[in-house]
Amino acid sequence: MAKVLTPRSENYSQWYNDLVLKAELAENSAVRGSMVIKPYGYAIWEKMQRQLDRMFKDTGHENAYFPLFIPKSFFSKEAAHVDGFAKECAVVTHYRLKNDPDGDGVIVDPDAKLEEELIVRPTSETIIWSTYKNWIQSYRDLPIKINQWANVVRWEMRTRLFLRTAEFLWQEGHTAHETKEEAIEETVTMINVYADFAEKYMAVPVLKGVKTENERFAGALDTYTIEALMQDGKALQSGTSHFLGQNFAKAFDVKYTSREGKEEYVWATSWGVSTRLMGALIMAHSDDNGLVLPPKLAPIQVVIVPIYRKEEEFKQVSEKAKEIVSKLRDMNIDVKFDDNDKKKPGWKFAEYELKGVPVRLAIGPRDVQNGTVEVARRDTLEKNVVPMDGVEKYIQTLLDEIQDNIYNKALNFRAEKTTRVDSYEEFKKVLKEKGGFILAHWDGTAETEQRIKDETKATIRCIPLESEPEEGICMVTGKPSKQRVVFAQAY
Amino acid sequence: MAKVLTPRSENYSQWYNDLVLKAELAENSAVRGSMVIKPYGYAIWEKMQRQLDRMFKDTGHENAYFPLFIPKSFFSKEAAHVDGFAKECAVVTHYRLKNDPDGDGVIVDPDAKLEEELIVRPTSETIIWSTYKNWIQSYRDLPIKINQWANVVRWEMRTRLFLRTAEFLWQEGHTAHETKEEAIEETVTMINVYADFAEKYMAVPVLKGVKTENERFAGALDTYTIEALMQDGKALQSGTSHFLGQNFAKAFDVKYTSREGKEEYVWATSWGVSTRLMGALIMAHSDDNGLVLPPKLAPIQVVIVPIYRKEEEFKQVSEKAKEIVSKLRDMNIDVKFDDNDKKKPGWKFAEYELKGVPVRLAIGPRDVQNGTVEVARRDTLEKNVVPMDGVEKYIQTLLDEIQDNIYNKALNFRAEKTTRVDSYEEFKKVLKEKGGFILAHWDGTAETEQRIKDETKATIRCIPLESEPEEGICMVTGKPSKQRVVFAQAY
Repeated sequence: MAKVLTPRSENYSQWYNDLVLKAELAENSAVRGSMVIKPYGYAIWEKMQRQLDRMFKDTGHENAYFPLFIPKSFFSKEAAHVDGFAKECAVVTHYRLKNDPDGDGVIVDPDAKLEEELIVRPTSETIIWSTYKNWIQSYRDLPIKINQWANVVRWEMRTRLFLRTAEFLWQEGHTAHETKEEAIEETVTMINVYADFAEKYMAVPVLKGVKTENERFAGALDTYTIEALMQDGKALQSGTSHFLGQNFAKAFDVKYTSREGKEEYVWATSWGVSTRLMGALIMAHSDDNGLVLPPKLAPIQVVIVPIYRKEEEFKQVSEKAKEIVSKLRDMNIDVKFDDNDKKKPGWKFAEYELKGVPVRLAIGPRDVQNGTVEVARRDTLEKNVVPMDGVEKYIQTLLDEIQDNIYNKALNFRAEKTTRVDSYEEFKKVLKEKGGFILAHWDGTAETEQRIKDETKATIRCIPLESEPEEGICMVTGKPSKQRVVFAQAY
Repeated sequence: MAKVLTPRSENYSQWYNDLVLKAELAENSAVRGSMVIKPYGYAIWEKMQRQLDRMFKDTGHENAYFPLFIPKSFFSKEAAHVDGFAKECAVVTHYRLKNDPDGDGVIVDPDAKLEEELIVRPTSETIIWSTYKNWIQSYRDLPIKINQWANVVRWEMRTRLFLRTAEFLWQEGHTAHETKEEAIEETVTMINVYADFAEKYMAVPVLKGVKTENERFAGALDTYTIEALMQDGKALQSGTSHFLGQNFAKAFDVKYTSREGKEEYVWATSWGVSTRLMGALIMAHSDDNGLVLPPKLAPIQVVIVPIYRKEEEFKQVSEKAKEIVSKLRDMNIDVKFDDNDKKKPGWKFAEYELKGVPVRLAIGPRDVQNGTVEVARRDTLEKNVVPMDGVEKYIQTLLDEIQDNIYNKALNFRAEKTTRVDSYEEFKKVLKEKGGFILAHWDGTAETEQRIKDETKATIRCIPLESEPEEGICMVTGKPSKQRVVFAQAY
């Protein structure tokens, strides 16, 4: 069968686009920069959502829903925030259409102009903090720990499916606290939740760190990030958690009476992950044959393909297949028995390989006779014939093994692609020839950071949380540095 | 304790508003017509979503996601559709803000005007059918059965929390079929799913029927509806399922090659329920003490309140409470042990009554001694002391009993408030004095329907599906009629 994907070695970017389209994950829509998330892609997103939602609730958060629209005046109350988002906002100016008196279409009714324009939320700090003002009077009203699942719009000029789209789906947590310490603790808790989710569910190892001032969220005092490494050696920022200090409380005048009876501004955090995670998931593991999905997020974890010529054979094979389906379902394993008789087994094999189904079983008449079943795993493409009896336990173990294997593969890849350099020359050489994460000393100034970015397109992905302090000198300016930071070219 | 709600008998509408606010379900936001759904309200909506989603998947549907924005030209391709929605559309005209050169705020950047305006979706038929065009070539590509969970915007002038808001949350199913028969079957299947959900989960009895031409969805050939009756005798349209014929296929040129090799237009349905269901749920069952929630949708199904004076008593009581919590959780019952020592039991009793928690347990030192627990049910406000031993089974049965009782109460109420009338005089009298559903003969014309509406504010809620044909004469014009239709004043 002809390969349906451009090989990664030939054109990584084209491979990604081919894969997203051919595996039926998403496609571009008629609306510039907005995608359609197709059912198979959405099913993966639903599994992500369900797990993240559980983790948010387990850490004491509740869901709620705030308006899509933000009055323009709210939006501009926090100065850094509006600077960060003003250039990419969709603006609603009118609330009615009418028939075109000069034609047969409709036009915007000029009489239905809004007094104040509404911004389609690019993020919800402003509308939420304007609401929290009414909810918070005393320390007894704190903390507030709310999450929202929502769509947001940022008018991106260059878009790519899942990675950068004008509209995307995400969750945004917005919490309010009595003290600075508690808010920072929340910020760290949530970056840890994201890291756990990425590593244990997506099987994507991530570096945890803090952003430099240049790369911070607009309005934050500190932005924590998880950074993943893609197969082309580029980094992908996969989730962020922001310590917002009292910036939004001050902008919206949100004060509380403290335990000591004093009026204080409330401390804030916000944190989010989006459908961008789909891009990370796809790019981290997949190969030239198609998607490779970690079992914990695969909509179909096991597919069973019957092999037969005659109707009688189909009956025998089906009977066995259905027994396995029933056992796997009892174990909460998502299994599909593909009994479509319009498609041949070879077509099905290729299809499920393309779609990244972790385990494929094939059962033919000889298997029925011998009490066996052929088990193929997607990650290594290995096949094994195993006894039908007890196959459900074999599969359960295999799913765990695949989950671990995919993670370890990505971890090894990252280790290979992580380089410590001590000179700017070496930095540029590694960046060009090898890519990946580069650990180097930097003098801590925005100027040097900008110069490196301009000259190499590499940015500081983060100042890593889990690393030893190490005295050194900045590779560019020779000024002193106390810790290596992580550079990479990034999505 | 003072009543926190305006009694229903005094002002039903005020009672509803009080309840939505005091039970912390939702509130108005700073954005005209848009609400904030608060955590407790959202938790109910999540339970609704989860169950509906399961029912959609069980009937063969998949979830996907389509863009929030619809190009204006798409929107006007189906004539009836644009007529129906053009007057209430939020329109995006610009994609950037900039600093106001004359002031310190931001203004819409006039250089960032969109070539074609974008409509914030009021419903997604147009964007979805423009997408389906690329997905459908042959009968092999059919049926497509997709659902989307999304927010939509309709610029309503008079809004009420949950019942009518500019932005609301909903699901919209959009299916594509080979034949008219199959599309009609799907339309009926989905109105049945909605009716099942309303009756079995919300405990709200509904009438199933078909809308008159006047009341049809803009672009539909037939609209099926479920109509619920609220305690003030008004009807609430709670879900609709539309047979769209080939209207959208024609508007977007979506054809398929049939089994006979001919090019045919595709047949369509769409169907939706929204956060309006929250309004129905609240109004159908609640009383002057607060919410009454059906156990199947209650975020907290059982609350345990400890009664104690001394620390030692609290320990003993807590120990017993925790045993019950653990047993109930094993049975998948959502239970909360409220051990907050800042609030008194009386306050907690009133609070959970207001929030509609179906079952409340109180455990005091004497209960520990006697091996008993006090069980209070929200629907009837009855209390019983029952043995601690086996209380979990008692509760499980009680939850089912409450679910049934709430439903039966609503069903009896509806029966009482359903009247057959044979003259227009009687019709007006019943409408004024009693309200509710009125079954009457109607001549089938839009003119008579409009006249009745103008004169009485009552509309035809539906032509009921489950009723006997009955010859008669129109109560207004005396012209012949073959079936009674259902009139009511409605939300």
